[in-house]
Parts: sequence; C-alpha cells; structure tokens
Amino acid sequence: MTFTAIAPKTTLDETYRLKLQPLEMPERLLMGAGPSNADPRVIAAMDRQPIGHLDPEYLRLMDEVQKLLRYAWQTHNFMTYPVPGTGSAAMEATLANTVEPGDVVLVAVKGYFGKRLVDMAHRYGGDVRTIEADWGSVFSLPELREAIAAHRPKVLAMVHAETSTGVLQPMEGIGDLCREFDCLLILDTVTSLGCVPIFLDDWKIDLAYSCSQKGLSCPPGISPFSMSDRAIEKLDQRTTPVANWYLDNSLLRKYWGGERTYHHTAPVNMTYGLREALRLLAEEGLEARWQRHQSNAIKLWAGLEELGLECMVPVEFRLPTLTSVKVPDGIDAKAFQLHLLREHNIEIGVGLGVLAGKIWRIGIMGANSYAEKVDRLLAVLAESLAQGVGRK
Amino acid sequence: MTFTAIAPKTTLDETYRLKLQPLEMPERLLMGAGPSNADPRVIAAMDRQPIGHLDPEYLRLMDEVQKLLRYAWQTHNFMTYPVPGTGSAAMEATLANTVEPGDVVLVAVKGYFGKRLVDMAHRYGGDVRTIEADWGSVFSLPELREAIAAHRPKVLAMVHAETSTGVLQPMEGIGDLCREFDCLLILDTVTSLGCVPIFLDDWKIDLAYSCSQKGLSCPPGISPFSMSDRAIEKLDQRTTPVANWYLDNSLLRKYWGGERTYHHTAPVNMTYGLREALRLLAEEGLEARWQRHQSNAIKLWAGLEELGLECMVPVEFRLPTLTSVKVPDGIDAKAFQLHLLREHNIEIGVGLGVLAGKIWRIGIMGANSYAEKVDRLLAVLAESLAQGVGRK
Repeated sequence: MTFTAIAPKTTLDETYRLKLQPLEMPERLLMGAGPSNADPRVIAAMDRQPIGHLDPEYLRLMDEVQKLLRYAWQTHNFMTYPVPGTGSAAMEATLANTVEPGDVVLVAVKGYFGKRLVDMAHRYGGDVRTIEADWGSVFSLPELREAIAAHRPKVLAMVHAETSTGVLQPMEGIGDLCREFDCLLILDTVTSLGCVPIFLDDWKIDLAYSCSQKGLSCPPGISPFSMSDRAIEKLDQRTTPVANWYLDNSLLRKYWGGERTYHHTAPVNMTYGLREALRLLAEEGLEARWQRHQSNAIKLWAGLEELGLECMVPVEFRLPTLTSVKVPDGIDAKAFQLHLLREHNIEIGVGLGVLAGKIWRIGIMGANSYAEKVDRLLAVLAESLAQGVGRK
Repeated sequence: MTFTAIAPKTTLDETYRLKLQPLEMPERLLMGAGPSNADPRVIAAMDRQPIGHLDPEYLRLMDEVQKLLRYAWQTHNFMTYPVPGTGSAAMEATLANTVEPGDVVLVAVKGYFGKRLVDMAHRYGGDVRTIEADWGSVFSLPELREAIAAHRPKVLAMVHAETSTGVLQPMEGIGDLCREFDCLLILDTVTSLGCVPIFLDDWKIDLAYSCSQKGLSCPPGISPFSMSDRAIEKLDQRTTPVANWYLDNSLLRKYWGGERTYHHTAPVNMTYGLREALRLLAEEGLEARWQRHQSNAIKLWAGLEELGLECMVPVEFRLPTLTSVKVPDGIDAKAFQLHLLREHNIEIGVGLGVLAGKIWRIGIMGANSYAEKVDRLLAVLAESLAQGVGRK
C-alpha cells in the first residue's frame, strides 16, 4: 500500500504551544446573576464518556429530557427541548423562528434583557416597536393592551424574570390579550424556570426559553426552549426560510421529533447534566421547589434589612431568585464585589447598563437556595460592610 | 415584611413528572464520524463546579484556550476562540460574519457538509454559486481557478476534511488564488483539526471552524473558530448588521478581546474540557499527533484490505481520520452497524445523502487513534463479516 505523505512542508510555529499545569479553579459560591453553582449530582452525571447523538440510548435520553422539561414548564408543547447553546441562543431561537422580515414585533422593555430582545428582533428583519418601563418596574395589563392595540404586533416578546433588575412580571391576562389580538407571546424565563411558578399552557405562552445554570443547577451550555402549536403554525406558513440554520426549528424538530434526522452533533455531556438537573426537580416537585426559593428569599431580604441595605424592587414584584440591592452611598460597587470574590470566594453580581454602579445583584437559585448559604453570604456582607470595604 | 404569595393558583400537572433512575450509559468505543471518545483527562477536567464567566480566573482560562487554539491551527489570528455551540454553530459563524445580502458566495461542494454550507449561505442572503465534484473526489487548483474567475465571489467556502466521504482536500495554492481574486477563504476543518496538518496562516485561510469531539477528544458542545484580520476588515465594512446575534463576532470580540464585555454566559465546564484537550495536544506536539494518526490510519487500511473490504477514496486523497468503506454487496449497512453497537459496544457511521447504504464511515481520531483500538475494531469486523451479520 502506498500512502502520500501528509507530513508538513512547513516548519511548525511553537509561539502558542503553552506548557500549562493541570486546571485548577477556586471553589466559588456563585450568588450572582448566574451561573449559579451546579448540583454535585449534575456534575457527577456529566462525568462519563459521551455516546453518539443518534445512539438508541441517547434517543431515549432525549425523550426523557423533553418530558421533564414539559413538567418544569407545565406545558404539553411537543416541541420542548434544549437548544445546543447558552441561554441567549435559546432566546434567539424564539425570534428566529417566528419573525419574518417586516413583521411587527412589540418588545416590552424594562431591563437589559428586554433590550437584547429588541436587538435580536431587528436582526431578523422585524419592524420592532417597544413599550418601555423604568428598570425595576413591571408592566400593567392596561399598558400592554394599549400598546398591542396601537401596534398590532405579530409577536409580543417580554421577560418574566428580568435578571438585570430582579423584577418578576405578573403574567395574568397577558396570554389572553395576545390571543385577542392574534399575536404570538414570547416569554423569557431564564431566571424563573425551576424556581418560580410558571404555567406555560395556562398562561397561553407561545414560546419560552431559559438556561441551565440558574434554577436548574446545571453548568451553562444547553438551554431549554418551548414552542406551541400556534407558533409552529406561523413557522409553517413562512414564505422565507428561517434566517438561522443552527436554530431553525423546522430542521430541529426532525431531530427532536419522530424522524431523528441528523442535524447537529448534540452536546451529549451537557444533556447528561440537564437530565440529572431535571430529575432533581421532579424528585423535589415544583411546589416544594417554589416554596424553598420563596422562603430563602424572605430570609435574605430580612437579613439585608438588618444590615441596613435596601432592595431596589418593591416586595410585591420582587424576584425570589435574584435580588437587586442598592449600593450604599460612598461604596464602590465593583471594588466591594471583587473583595467578596477574592477574599471570600463568593460571587455576587453588579448592575448592568443604567444600573451599573448602583446595585448589586444577589442570586439565590437552585442548589444555592438553602438557609446555610444565605447565612454565609449575609455574614460576609456584614463583615465587609463593617470593615468599610470599597469605601470611596 | 410582607410578601405577596407566589404560590400557584393552578393545579400542577404531573403528566411529565417522570420518576427516573440515575443515568446509566453504555461505554461505547466511538469509531464513527463523531463524536469520538473523550480523553479521560478531559472528562476529569470538566468534573468540577463552574465559576463565573467574568471571573478573573475564567478570563485567564480564556486567554490560555485562545493561545492553544492558535497553536493547533498554526495561526496568529487574534480572533481565535471557541464558539459556544457545536461544530455547525461555528460553521454558521463563519458565514454569518462575512456574508452580506447580495454577496456572491462560491461553495465548493463534494459532500454533505459542502451542501450544508450552501444552505447556510442562502440564509444570510448570499448570491450562492456552487462548483460541484463527485462525492469522494477533490477539487483541482485549475478547476477552482476557473470557477472563481467565472463567479468572482466575495467568499469561497470549502471543506478540508469532508466527514461525509473521507476525502482530504489538498490546499496548496488555494489561498493565493483567493488573494489574487480578492476573495475570502472559509475552510471547514471539523475532521482535520488536531489530526492532520493544517497551517491556517501559511495557507492564507481567512476563516476556519472545527469541533471539539473529534481530533481534540473533548465532548461536543464548544467549537473552535478563527478569523483573520482580512476577514475582520470585511466585517467592519458591513453596511448591515450581522444577521445573527449569538454568533456576531463584532459583539463576541468584545468578550474575547481586551474589553471583556458580557455577551453570553459561557459554557464554562465545556471550556474546562477544551483547555485540557488542547493541553494534551500541546504536550504531544502537532507533529507527533499527525504522525500517530497517519500510522494508525495505515494500520486500519491494511486491516480492511485483509478482510477484503474496499476503501471508497483513492489513497492519495484519503483522510487519516475518517475512512469510508464500501459496504459489500448483499449486506444491509444499517443492520450491520446496529449489530456492532448492540453486541460489541462499537459505533461506526453509515453513509449520508447519496452515500446512504453504500458506505460505512470509520473514524480513528484523537484518543481512539491507538493500535489496540484499531485492532479491536478489526477483530469485531472480521468476526461479524464471518458470521454473515446484516446479510440481506
């Protein structure tokens, strides 16, 4: 047998041939806006060899993940599956599949992630309109009705749990409003899934997305997505192809549906992790999970109050998963955050956009929503404030 | 403190609350078209808690991964980083960032993944032209010159190692041709990176992409991407925004570049794995790695010949990483494949598209490119053929 040499004709460049030590990472308590810590059982589930993305054993796993995701979201949507990317990919998937050039898209913006929806909707040729509210507030049903009546959108996109502000948007009546005006409803549940009540079907949500690394306590890299039959109908009536191959549900449903046609090589180990994360959720049960997040949030808020710290969001709209805390006058938010990270191995978040420097964001989610972790954070906050950390 | 109840007003639907056992997966020897097995050191590196995607320790890790990827591809491209998705996302990133509506895009199609490039280029509004060759053959330089001269494309996209056929495209002279005609060159190195010589800079490749789960021996879910300054120049001169938020390099480079601006929540544990995979590559060295893949491929081919099996691709264009083997007359390719999977825990691939039923695809990549694994496969092939497995 002859074999034409594949040996290089060029000298190798060794500039970037780093000689590195084995990976070492500090053990952080992740109490920022995400990622949150993974449950040890999830990490353990990922600790094995991948198998093929069309292996019958993997197809069985896909079925399980789809079903458990339906439980988590309280939906019967067949097209409920994880997108092979991080939360923003799942966000983009909702718009990519529904927006055709020229479609009026109304985005309700009350924080950073509302603005991201606007940016994405533009990229798919949407005729994008916005209704805006102060960062830290919510939309009322009459405000939304007025905006929908004025713009007559084909799609309304909004955020359930705004990660940038810590606000929980009440959803009662919004789905009905969208049906009345024949409009699809997209909901961002990135910081609510697995922690805060969500009823996708009862609320008449047409498309929803989330992430793995917050309430579900799985590392980031795979992201829940759900699409109603009503949304699929609009997809099927498109006259233009979905302007995104990777996130095109008309291709993805052949892989996640009965045909099992190859689309992409699935993120196999991330799917192992997500299955375990969802299994943990099903074991605990949604009601117990919601209750746990509620009581640990109340514990946090009481503790913050004792320290003389003020929450930005009124208690009736406050997210149990993510609390925005006003930075006291005279303290450098970022320096204080870095101190917690470096001296105490605790990560908290800082403000985004207009809230930069003004708030800290404290996430108590999933595997971190336990009294002892809240206590640990409160003790470190108390100590650092007393020491005058970050004082300008 | 008062707290408005977040308790559900709706009864929980328990339909999909599955009660599952802990995850169990068979230990497969993955010798198909990918994923290939991960190196145990890679899996071990992933087996830890995530940290924040803006943590200083994580930013350091990002730097290391970028540099090691430059070594792997032999490039000095600053914008060399992993895309937070699987290989097809990195493929789409090359086109999304370079193609503006109306741009002539020439795709050299000689297999399934060339066709995928055509599909994607259409979605970005490209005026897509193709030059086609039989599946299993390569393009000659004169053929490419003729096509470029005829179509005058802004972008030429082609596949280095066609995973659907097992062909290695000779790259000598193609980069110069593209410079001569002022055209960007995109190269698919999904099945060549880390296994077969690639010299991105010497070959004057403007954009390249790959995957983690083949030659790099990391699970799927994160995918190398590189973009030259010449390609960035075209990006900077765009008059339309990149029609894909998640893969927009003008946003991503603020995260991977000096600014470290938040874009998406990185797939942290996958990045741990990729760092270890690249560290393994740097330890072994590219030349030794290439040599190992070449000698184990030769071993496989000799063994197949002894069994009376015929390779589809002439030896001078045959990929060392992926070998397409003609299915002998009278054997059901799929039934034979399933037998290997179920009875021997070995995965091999079947043909895609026009090659369905006609070939098997045998991948000997990364952590599987060792003599004892080739021997194990050959022994199982010999036994199964002798038993008449899959005979129609």
